[in-house]
Order: sequence, then structure tokens, then C-alpha cells
Amino acid sequence: MPVKKEDSLKKLNWDEFYKVPLNKKLNYFDEDNHLFDCLFSQQFDRKILDHLFKLATKIRTIAKEKEGIDWLQTLLSHKRAILYFIQPSTRTFLSFQSACYILGMKVSEIRSTSTSSELKGESPEDTVRTFSSYTDLIIMRHFEEGFAEKTAWLLNKTNRPIPVINGGSGKDQHPTQALLDLYTLNWAFNDKGGIDNKTIAMVGDLKRGRTVRSLTYLLKNYKNVKFIYVSPDYLKIGDDIKKFLIKHKMEFIETDNMNKAIKNVDAIYMTRIQDEYDINGESKDIDYSKFHITKEHLKMIKKTAIIMHPLPRRQEIDPAVDDDPRAMYWRQERNGMWIRTALIAHIFGLDKVISAK
Amino acid sequence: MPVKKEDSLKKLNWDEFYKVPLNKKLNYFDEDNHLFDCLFSQQFDRKILDHLFKLATKIRTIAKEKEGIDWLQTLLSHKRAILYFIQPSTRTFLSFQSACYILGMKVSEIRSTSTSSELKGESPEDTVRTFSSYTDLIIMRHFEEGFAEKTAWLLNKTNRPIPVINGGSGKDQHPTQALLDLYTLNWAFNDKGGIDNKTIAMVGDLKRGRTVRSLTYLLKNYKNVKFIYVSPDYLKIGDDIKKFLIKHKMEFIETDNMNKAIKNVDAIYMTRIQDEYDINGESKDIDYSKFHITKEHLKMIKKTAIIMHPLPRRQEIDPAVDDDPRAMYWRQERNGMWIRTALIAHIFGLDKVISAK
Amino acid sequence: MPVKKEDSLKKLNWDEFYKVPLNKKLNYFDEDNHLFDCLFSQQFDRKILDHLFKLATKIRTIAKEKEGIDWLQTLLSHKRAILYFIQPSTRTFLSFQSACYILGMKVSEIRSTSTSSELKGESPEDTVRTFSSYTDLIIMRHFEEGFAEKTAWLLNKTNRPIPVINGGSGKDQHPTQALLDLYTLNWAFNDKGGIDNKTIAMVGDLKRGRTVRSLTYLLKNYKNVKFIYVSPDYLKIGDDIKKFLIKHKMEFIETDNMNKAIKNVDAIYMTRIQDEYDINGESKDIDYSKFHITKEHLKMIKKTAIIMHPLPRRQEIDPAVDDDPRAMYWRQERNGMWIRTALIAHIFGLDKVISAK
Repeated sequence: MPVKKEDSLKKLNWDEFYKVPLNKKLNYFDEDNHLFDCLFSQQFDRKILDHLFKLATKIRTIAKEKEGIDWLQTLLSHKRAILYFIQPSTRTFLSFQSACYILGMKVSEIRSTSTSSELKGESPEDTVRTFSSYTDLIIMRHFEEGFAEKTAWLLNKTNRPIPVINGGSGKDQHPTQALLDLYTLNWAFNDKGGIDNKTIAMVGDLKRGRTVRSLTYLLKNYKNVKFIYVSPDYLKIGDDIKKFLIKHKMEFIETDNMNKAIKNVDAIYMTRIQDEYDINGESKDIDYSKFHITKEHLKMIKKTAIIMHPLPRRQEIDPAVDDDPRAMYWRQERNGMWIRTALIAHIFGLDKVISAK
Repeated sequence: MPVKKEDSLKKLNWDEFYKVPLNKKLNYFDEDNHLFDCLFSQQFDRKILDHLFKLATKIRTIAKEKEGIDWLQTLLSHKRAILYFIQPSTRTFLSFQSACYILGMKVSEIRSTSTSSELKGESPEDTVRTFSSYTDLIIMRHFEEGFAEKTAWLLNKTNRPIPVINGGSGKDQHPTQALLDLYTLNWAFNDKGGIDNKTIAMVGDLKRGRTVRSLTYLLKNYKNVKFIYVSPDYLKIGDDIKKFLIKHKMEFIETDNMNKAIKNVDAIYMTRIQDEYDINGESKDIDYSKFHITKEHLKMIKKTAIIMHPLPRRQEIDPAVDDDPRAMYWRQERNGMWIRTALIAHIFGLDKVISAK
Repeated sequence: MPVKKEDSLKKLNWDEFYKVPLNKKLNYFDEDNHLFDCLFSQQFDRKILDHLFKLATKIRTIAKEKEGIDWLQTLLSHKRAILYFIQPSTRTFLSFQSACYILGMKVSEIRSTSTSSELKGESPEDTVRTFSSYTDLIIMRHFEEGFAEKTAWLLNKTNRPIPVINGGSGKDQHPTQALLDLYTLNWAFNDKGGIDNKTIAMVGDLKRGRTVRSLTYLLKNYKNVKFIYVSPDYLKIGDDIKKFLIKHKMEFIETDNMNKAIKNVDAIYMTRIQDEYDINGESKDIDYSKFHITKEHLKMIKKTAIIMHPLPRRQEIDPAVDDDPRAMYWRQERNGMWIRTALIAHIFGLDKVISAK
């Protein structure tokens, strides 16, 4: 299936293409009105979000029965995927692998450069092109910002382009994390009017966590969502996000008082301190304990509020909270598998056959 | 399938639960009269042993034909297993993976903590709970004593408990090794009256090898089995085992004279010196060569005797012995795959459908 | 399926067997007129080559449709393969894994000795015998010359021999690489009279690259093929190859002038400098840039010439060359998957059922 791309973009070399603003090149990664590559949160508008959420819920329902899973497994039984994860990851890796299995794909995995031909001086571009020789889908987590985009760009120029899904690249994008967060919000507020008009507290390391960033971007697709950004002073949300919020007339406030902030919100989105990005161990001087949820907090928050976390957690949420029905992070984690299954199904054009089941 | 547990145990925290004597909590890991989690050798009584052996032999027979394996693969084609093996293991890992494949399960593997979220400060408890979000069965080998039990305990408290199989934890338990040893004895003595009334020589590092320990425990389920424990003085069997033998009126003698001991026994169970547990390199001072089997020994032992070894071996058994029909260790190894397949089938309640085939 | 071997060979121990000249022991690795183990390029004669190429092309055609791949996957759905790759490899590993998947095999992988029982002092022989307990096919890449042969020799003496495929051992043999190179030549010259009468330039590190060596050996099976060996003086082709060429009356010349050499050839086979075999960093003193292909060279060579490379490449071929229709290396890479699928199908005797499809 040759991919038709806009002619003006086709002629650019990589450095030129990379500099093109996102909104001018998103189409380059589509095919016939559906996603071909999944690289950026910005690829998701309200229509595709609603569609994917419906598809994920349908797949989940089908998968409740053995016959259902067995049927789903016939859909992509002829396809092979490669998981190229050379940054540590358990959750995203397993979640994608399970999604592939649910659709019947065969899976190869490369989890370390030490087993790879890069040792022999191969360029990263040749390495990913090699993957495309043997498989039908590349799902990748890479330390280099922009490398998933480069892979997609490169393969789209060959005579055998295959889809690329970004499973997290650098500090940058992690679009399927945002997708599962939003799917969880949508699911939890299903009988409460959906995500529109809700207030969400984002708590913790807002400066460096990419999930908060991506989620904020995507919530632009909903009406009248209000944000409370709760963090220590040093970890406040970046100016680029604030500009984005102001530009899109999204209401927000900032505070370092978590106990007050979480009282009347509909959702609390907790995050881990990202000290792997410390330059001089500055995280050590921060009193992060004020941004922890314990059983005490359960009494303060709304009965209908939900607590989310992208996981892994450290002490941000006491495990004693796990039993509370408002604790949504374990379900959120499992939702990742379902929405990723839906995404892959969508990329391979299975929407109709699944919806009709 | 929610698991009903005894109410008194349900209220305990982990430290309390861990201290409960094994015989008072074994039921906690059952479900509807069959094993749900497989953690301890003590979970196997004569009835379940006989049942699993029969099931394993049935599966093995079915698997002789392509149609048979293809049919077996339909049984759990809708299930996903994770092999969480963060201690070195080839044999147990491959054996379990093959067992999963035989039943059609899709398999994910985590073989190193370096690819995992533990690097980001996640607790081991959260890590295993994550596995349960994506898969239907956890098979684990972990360096921490009691961690498989803790995993099962933890998951049984969630709203999505999945079975846990202990593939070896610490110096402690390795129940499926004992199971395959016993299955091999049962198989070898099938037309000689079974395991009852047999004499077994256990040879080598009896102090530190967990297989000898587990096997001794399980042989309590048989009548009138006699033991000869053969080892260098420093590596004699522990006092706890002796107490157990005496309590259950099991006949045994100890010796350091292997050549004499093996003459009239029905089975010789060889073991490797476990020098990885040395504190000050004490193994170096032991003359272990007296506890090696060579072609010379084949002339001394009974024509009907069998030679077993849990493998891997070093010099305990000369490879020249491999061709002798009494050398049973390679078959024993393959038996591990069949009995593990039976165990998984049992856990998922497939006993009847397989037996009826 | 017990393998019948020549009686005189059966009695030899390994050291004796290893010394037997190749042509006297090739039959030992056959079964009923087809390959059982695939260890050496020398196992392929013209008849088997033509047969495998036809089979590969048939498989590739069948695999164009979902129904076709689904059907292929039923053929070995009852078999399990192990990929034992303890030397770095992406390409060969993925290619074989994909081949296994195409035929429906379940795959286990061991990619590092650090997860293995070799840590506990197990012999390499016991390790591979263990693989044969659980699986039906061993595909291996090992650093030790002759180890794949030893594995096949060892297993053929047991009562459960399984096929062994050599995926590269030491500096020595890499028979399936030669196979895919030849398949690509055959495919490219399909409507130009085949490989017979063609002229091939082999360029680069001819001294240490095993692909050039294997390919030369195999081209003996074709009529009137001419060779131009192009290399820096230090990296000239070995005397053993020259003796072979002279013995079989194969025409060749040697040169260090690439630009002149490639002008009128039908195929240019580029290779990477194998500096991993340097003893004192001698590669650094060699001007390898004279043995690089750039866009400039495309104007010099024949319109019908093809450019090959076993990959991975460094600077031997400028990526700008990739778009040229004569650049055949990416297709060559993918051909590896198809020919390996054909090889496995052949080993398991599926030739007829596939050809009849």
C-alpha cells in the first residue's frame, strides 16, 4: 500500500522536514483518512479520540469471552510486529506486546543495543530499515528525541513503508500514554457527562513529566476543562504550556497547596518526581512529601473524584489507597492495553470489521 | 473469577500472613478444589500428585500427533502468561515457556531488572501487580525468599487475581522441580509397583540443594520409601529434614561411602555442589570426586536402578554414562515440560476436557 | 524419526569426526534425501539450490495474501524452535525468527549466556542438549568455530535428534548468508539467463569476510562465472580460495582499482571492513574510501548491474545510492527471510505440500 504524501514535503531532506511545524506535517503520517504512523499527541483530534475510545471499549467487550479473543486473534494473524525498546520500560512494553497478541500478531523484540548490529557500526537509520524488511509494524521507545518521527519519515520514502508507533522518545512525546489517560477519564466520566466541564488537578513534577504536558495538549479537544497545577515552586509547569493554555482559552491556576487544591476536583492526576533529569541532584532539596496522597486525603476529596497516576509510582500514592474505589491507576494501566489494541487495529484499517462484530 | 479465601487469613497484613505456618494457609492458594497458585511442595498430596501425573502422561500422548498439539493449543489460546525470571535459568525458563506454548498461551518475558521500571524506583509489589494488568498467569523465579508467596497473597486481594507459579525462589522452594522428579520416579517404576517401597540414594550437596529437600518432603506421600543420604561430612542433610523424617517415620541412613550406598538402591539422585552458597570458599576443600558417577559405577548398581539429576551437572555424572538406559536425567528434564503443562492445565481447570480427549 | 548415519562415522568420537574432511561427512547431516542439519555451504549443490530458490519464491507468492500466510502458519504450528544467538546479531536473528513465525512455529530465544546455566558450570554440550529436550529445531549463532557442527553431531547420537541450523559460527561458516546471496543473484538474473556466465566483482575486506568466501564456494555450482576480487593489498582474498578457484577452473582476477573493475560487471558485491578481527588496529592504516560506492559510481556501471551488500554497512555504500533500482541490498536482506523459510520447510519435509499449493 503505497502512501500518498503531500508533494512539497516529499522533497525535503530530514533536517528540513524536522523543522516543519507539527501542524503542517501531520497529514504526512496519515493514509486514506486514518493514522498510518502514530508519533505525536497532536495527531489526535476529538473525532479520532471518540472513535478510538469506542473501538477500545468494543474490543474489551469482545475479549471477555474466549471466542471473542480467538476471533480478534485472527484479524492480524498474518502480521509481524517488532518492539524496539532500547530504553528501560516494563509497562509500555508489556502493554504493547499484549495488544499485539490480542490481535494475533507475532512479535519480535529488541530490548538492548548490545545484541544489535549497531555494535558493528550500523547507522540507526539502517537498523530500523532492517526491521521493516522483516516485519509489518515498528513500535519503538528510543532515547533520541525525534527518532520515531525520523523512522517514519525514512520508511515512508521506501517502497515498503510500514507503520511506526512512538512508544516514548526522549523527554518529548509519548502519545499513547496521553491516549490511555484520556480514555480513562472518558471511561470514568461516561455517565457524568464525559470529560467536558471537569476540573482536573495535576500534581507533582509538572516541569519535567511528559505525561502532564501531553495530557494538557489533548484536553484542548474538550470543552471547558479547568486545570489546577499543583507543584513545588521549582517544578512548576513550563511557560510553553501556559502560553498554550492561554492561547486556547483554557482556564487554569497554579498552587503549591495540594490539600486545598484537591478538595473539589473531579480528577487528581499524580506524578512521580523525575529526578533522572536532575542536573545537580536538585530534587533532594525539594520536600515532595506535600505532594503525596495517603488514606487521610481520601476523606477530603469528592466521592466521585478519581485518582490517576501514569505509574511507576514511588511514594506519591500510599498503597493503602489502592483499595479505594476512586483509585483508578491500576485500571488506567490496563486501559493502556485496550487503547493500544484499538490504535493498532485502527492503523491496519480494522475499525469496521470490529465495530460490526 | 473471584477467589474465596478463609476470612481469618484475609485480614492479616503480609508480615502476619507470612508467619502463619504453611499447613494453615495452603487453602488460601486454592480455588474450588483445585490449585490456583503453585508456591510450595507442601501443596501436593498423593491425590493431586497421582492426578497430575496421569494428566501429564495424557498430554504427552496427545502431543505425539500434530493434530493433538494443534488441539492442545486451542485450550488456552485466549490467555497470556508472563515469565518473570530475574535469576539466571535456562532449563526452568524454557521448560515453562514450552509448556505455555503447548497450551497455546502467548508469552511475555522479563529476564532482567535492567529493562524494568524497578530502575525508576517502583516497588517489587507494584511491578508484579503490573504484570497482572496485562496477563493471565505469572510464572516467576526470584532471588527473594517468599516473594512468589507475597505476589500470590497480594494479587489475591485485588479485584483481578491471576494465578502465580513459583519457578524457584531463593534457597527456598522450587515446587515444580520436585514435581518433575517425582513424576520421573513414578514413570520409571510404573510397571514395578510405583514409588512405594523403593530405596533412593540422594548423593552430593544435601545441605544446600533445595531439590533434595523438596523431594524428601513430597516422598512422605508414598509408603515405605527408604532413603540413603550420601554426602561429604560438611554437606550432610540438615537437622530440619531429619526431624521431618523421624516425625513421619520415614526410614533413612546417612553415609559418606557412595560406592557402597548405591549398590542395592532403586534410584540414585545425584546433585551438584552448590558452591554459589559458599561463605568462605569452603567447597574447595571438599573432595567431591567421591560423589561422582562414572561408567565404572554402572557395573555396581542394579540393572533396574535409575540415575537422576536435576541438572545442570558439572562432573557428578560422566557424559559417558548418558548412553546407559538407566541414565534417566535427560528424560527427567523433558518430563519437566510435560508436568508443567499439566500443572498449568490444572490451574485453568482443563483437567476434564483433556482427560476426555 | 531416527536418523540413519553411515556406520563408519558413527563410531568416531568428536575429535576424530571433526577432522574428517567435509566431503566425506556431508551425508551424515542428511536424512532421507533431504537436509536434516544445515551447517556448511558445501551441503548445497546445484539441484538443492534450484529447489530451495523455487520453494522460497513459491512461499513468497503464497504469503502475499492473508489466507496464504495463515495457511503457511498451519504447517509447523505444532513445532517449537529455539534461537540460540549468543553473538550479537539483529539481522540474522530477526530473519530466522520471522521465518519460524511464517511457518507457525513457536519460538524461544537465548541471546546471552548471562541468563543461562552455563553460569553454574554446565558444559556447552549439555546446554544444547537441554534445548533439544524442549524444542524441535535449534538455530544457533555461536562464537566457537565448529560448535554448530558439534551440536548436530552430538544430537544425532541421542535418541531424540532434532535439526540444527548454523546461523554463523566463528569466522567460519554462515551458510544461510551464502544462500540468500545466491538467491538474490538468481532472482535478479531470472530473465537474463540466470547466474551462469555472469561476472561478479567482490569488493572490500576479502581476507576476513566470511560471506565472500562462502559465496565463492557456492558459485562453483554455476557455469562460467567470472570473479573480480577488488581490495586493498592487505585485505586480498586468501590463498585457500585461490587454490579452490584454480582447482575448479573458475576464472578470476585481482585488483585494487575499484572504479575500473566495476565498469562491466553484472553484480557488485560490497563488504564492510571487518576490523573486529584486527590484531593491532591495522585497519586504521588502510584507505578504505577507495572501496566505497557513491552516486558518482552509478553513472559508471552497467544499467543492468546489481549492487549487493550483506549488511550491516558503514560507509561502503552511500545511503543516497539506496533509491537507485540497481541497489539490491535491501531486497537481498528481505530475501534472507524467504530463503530461510524455505530451508526450514525443506528440513521438515514440507516441499511437496507447499509446491502443490
